[in-house]
Amino acid sequence: MTHDELIMALENILGQQRVLHREHQLLAYECDGYVAQKARPRAVVFPETTDEVASIVKLLHEHKIPFLPRGAGTGLSGGATALNGEVIISLVKMDKFLSVDYENMRAVVQPGHINLQLTRKIAPQNWYYAPDPSSQSACTIGGNLAENAGGSHCLKYGVTTNHIVAAEVVLPTGEIVNVGSPFGDALGYDVLGLIVGSEGTMGIATAITVRILQKPEAVKTIMAMYDNVSDASDTVSDVIAAGIIPAAMEMMDQLAMQAVDKSNYHVGYPTDIDAVLLIEVDGLRAGVEESAELIVEICRKHNVRSVQVAGSDAERSLWWSSRKMAFGAMGRISPDYIVQDGVIPRTRLTEVLTRISEISRESGLRIANVFHAGDGNLHPLICYDSRVPGETERAVAAGSAILKVCADVGGSITGEHGVGVEKIEEMRFVFSDADLSAQIQIRSVFNPLDLCNSGKLIPKPGRCAEVRQAKRIIEQHAEIFDGFQEQTMIASPGK
Amino acid sequence: MTHDELIMALENILGQQRVLHREHQLLAYECDGYVAQKARPRAVVFPETTDEVASIVKLLHEHKIPFLPRGAGTGLSGGATALNGEVIISLVKMDKFLSVDYENMRAVVQPGHINLQLTRKIAPQNWYYAPDPSSQSACTIGGNLAENAGGSHCLKYGVTTNHIVAAEVVLPTGEIVNVGSPFGDALGYDVLGLIVGSEGTMGIATAITVRILQKPEAVKTIMAMYDNVSDASDTVSDVIAAGIIPAAMEMMDQLAMQAVDKSNYHVGYPTDIDAVLLIEVDGLRAGVEESAELIVEICRKHNVRSVQVAGSDAERSLWWSSRKMAFGAMGRISPDYIVQDGVIPRTRLTEVLTRISEISRESGLRIANVFHAGDGNLHPLICYDSRVPGETERAVAAGSAILKVCADVGGSITGEHGVGVEKIEEMRFVFSDADLSAQIQIRSVFNPLDLCNSGKLIPKPGRCAEVRQAKRIIEQHAEIFDGFQEQTMIASPGK
Repeated sequence: MTHDELIMALENILGQQRVLHREHQLLAYECDGYVAQKARPRAVVFPETTDEVASIVKLLHEHKIPFLPRGAGTGLSGGATALNGEVIISLVKMDKFLSVDYENMRAVVQPGHINLQLTRKIAPQNWYYAPDPSSQSACTIGGNLAENAGGSHCLKYGVTTNHIVAAEVVLPTGEIVNVGSPFGDALGYDVLGLIVGSEGTMGIATAITVRILQKPEAVKTIMAMYDNVSDASDTVSDVIAAGIIPAAMEMMDQLAMQAVDKSNYHVGYPTDIDAVLLIEVDGLRAGVEESAELIVEICRKHNVRSVQVAGSDAERSLWWSSRKMAFGAMGRISPDYIVQDGVIPRTRLTEVLTRISEISRESGLRIANVFHAGDGNLHPLICYDSRVPGETERAVAAGSAILKVCADVGGSITGEHGVGVEKIEEMRFVFSDADLSAQIQIRSVFNPLDLCNSGKLIPKPGRCAEVRQAKRIIEQHAEIFDGFQEQTMIASPGK
Repeated sequence: MTHDELIMALENILGQQRVLHREHQLLAYECDGYVAQKARPRAVVFPETTDEVASIVKLLHEHKIPFLPRGAGTGLSGGATALNGEVIISLVKMDKFLSVDYENMRAVVQPGHINLQLTRKIAPQNWYYAPDPSSQSACTIGGNLAENAGGSHCLKYGVTTNHIVAAEVVLPTGEIVNVGSPFGDALGYDVLGLIVGSEGTMGIATAITVRILQKPEAVKTIMAMYDNVSDASDTVSDVIAAGIIPAAMEMMDQLAMQAVDKSNYHVGYPTDIDAVLLIEVDGLRAGVEESAELIVEICRKHNVRSVQVAGSDAERSLWWSSRKMAFGAMGRISPDYIVQDGVIPRTRLTEVLTRISEISRESGLRIANVFHAGDGNLHPLICYDSRVPGETERAVAAGSAILKVCADVGGSITGEHGVGVEKIEEMRFVFSDADLSAQIQIRSVFNPLDLCNSGKLIPKPGRCAEVRQAKRIIEQHAEIFDGFQEQTMIASPGK
């Protein structure tokens, strides 16, 4: 099938208006929120129904043409980058809110429905959808499903996989299947659990049933500032040890605060503090009051310089905006930056932060830290200038080195941003060739020809060239990678 | 390999003491808690280390001899029945508590470790393990993993899959792999999620890392008695609608209460009430007080006959014992009984209970109901007498008919007991042949020769003989199955 025949066949299904294929039209689709690697898709199509998605996928499968699904393009790991000149299937026109069942706590949306819109739609009845990525005003529920997105409030409520109970999915062969169970837990093997977080490699969700929650009766937000990170970090541990599970427990370091204060969010952080904690508790009024008092006490025990409870919704909202916009605010202090996303056991926080500041020194690059402290999910922000020769490479190597530290202390190389193209080689820090082969076998049950978002999430096992390249990067940046313990990440609990 | 050669090879690995193969020794292993179908294993072996498990599995795999893992044998769906004369690999000698890390909220145990022992071990430090099946004083964490076990307190805390974060697993080929991640969510495809609940068809967990929780500061337990089930059921809906998520919300009907009162638990239920609710809230003291008051108010709004809050730990403990022993208590009112396990949307409760009482009338068998009302997980207890010709078959057909009702209202055919051999044909109420083929393909990634617990969980797709047999059962018991709507269970949300 020639390129022109393909375009015509796609237009036959969708009409000319919903098939983009001219060069200037494709420019905007060369990358998502991960801008370090770009690639031109051969076309971008905009289906509006499940049957249209299935028809397109069948056509592409039949002619062995690679394709990938795309939501709002806010992803941070390059999951929607058309590495193989894919046809991009954009789900933004499938953005409907389909139904809601308050009594059974369920809502059904199309994949292009925007995360925050879902909460807005049910807010008048006092309900909400819990997972709240920083990009929630733009990102889609379909994209959240693909990336198993997290968010500040996932400490108490869990990430996306805990909130999606069923989905209609167009498999990479074009077959339409329904997975999961709107009520009751998974039956048979947990196929829905396998598809959530599969980064678009196992098909395209076309209708998604989510769990919705009632808004808590009361919320209290506490901001605590510290002269040093280890006091803040001890506070986090002690809050958990006290048996409180806050809805959120976020930390930012000095450099991140500077960036935020230079942007439009004038929280007015003192310039000389080392760390700020944002802790939120929610639930019934009486319990929330008790928790907030206890948390303030714990902060005081750990040498907090100042601690306050938000006095109004406006104040609470300003504090949260400053946190949620922290990534974007980095643009105020650095021409370019990479957002990393590693997970560590909470108890290793101080040690890992020390290692990150060493990596910053060794690489000569500033690194800010913004993180979901409660569950040990770090977001180091590596500042660099792509106009300076070699600096991009050093930034990438520093990011990789940080992920190696996370893996070495028993953590993970992604908390919520996905692997995509960005971290695909770092999967080898964690998985053996045998593990990767098993993952590829699982994928091939659904995606036998590897046409659907090929080259993402799971690296090919034992490709010597790639392993050699990874080794070369480590050697070239020996000073950054130096001194790592050679541990395996997946604990061997029984041995 | 002859039988004698096999026994010798097993004894070479484990020694004579840990290989049972004489007929009288095997009798106790002909079934688990599901007694309606029995089968003799060819041997039962007791490994003590991961390497021993791996050696045994390698030997069996090499000689294509079927095998299956077994925990305490408390399962209710026949998951540990040696349908194919399997070698049973008992994990009861691998019962160690390996380690605990309070700061990071993790403990590691061997698969044979008993559920309640885990909580007892960490209770002095004020921690516990949340999933609490009724059999928790006997059942093992490995068995809980295989069946994705639930329990009364899973309403608030989630079932086993939400509490297991990593595992060392001997695959059906004998390979030892580590899956999951002790910290952070699943990376790559969620293989651990696939193995949890796979009923022993994907390998044998030999070390299990679980999430542990701090004991709540306060607990309040409320018992409410009703003249009719629909008032009790409206109470359940209203409690959830009020934004309270109780730790547990359990219901028993009149027949179940009679059984309990005839056993050793003299709660003293009035003989003329229709339903009793047991509701428990936990958390910080202030929040718990507030919730308990609100719940009592809601009970009153729904014509409760009497409602009381447990005044002491002893009273609370009596109430819980009476609930947890309800299954066993059935023996007081019926020579035999089948415990069924279906899930329905909570809002369909009254309608489904009406249908169950019709099935009871049509089959001529008494059916008691004990259920996790909060999450719509029903446990109909079907009373029968196996000495009366035809009664066993009628009881099995009635159970199947109830599951069909659950499937037809959009629910599931198992909440927490698993599919095993008991419900394997009922999987067809829910899954198409295409769905079953996909599930078998997933299994074959791990269990290519289907040697490991063959014939459980996933029925073979489109085996005409079996489909014919299912149809014959439905025809023979037309009165019981009559009047079902022909709906598919898995909702088609987008269509």
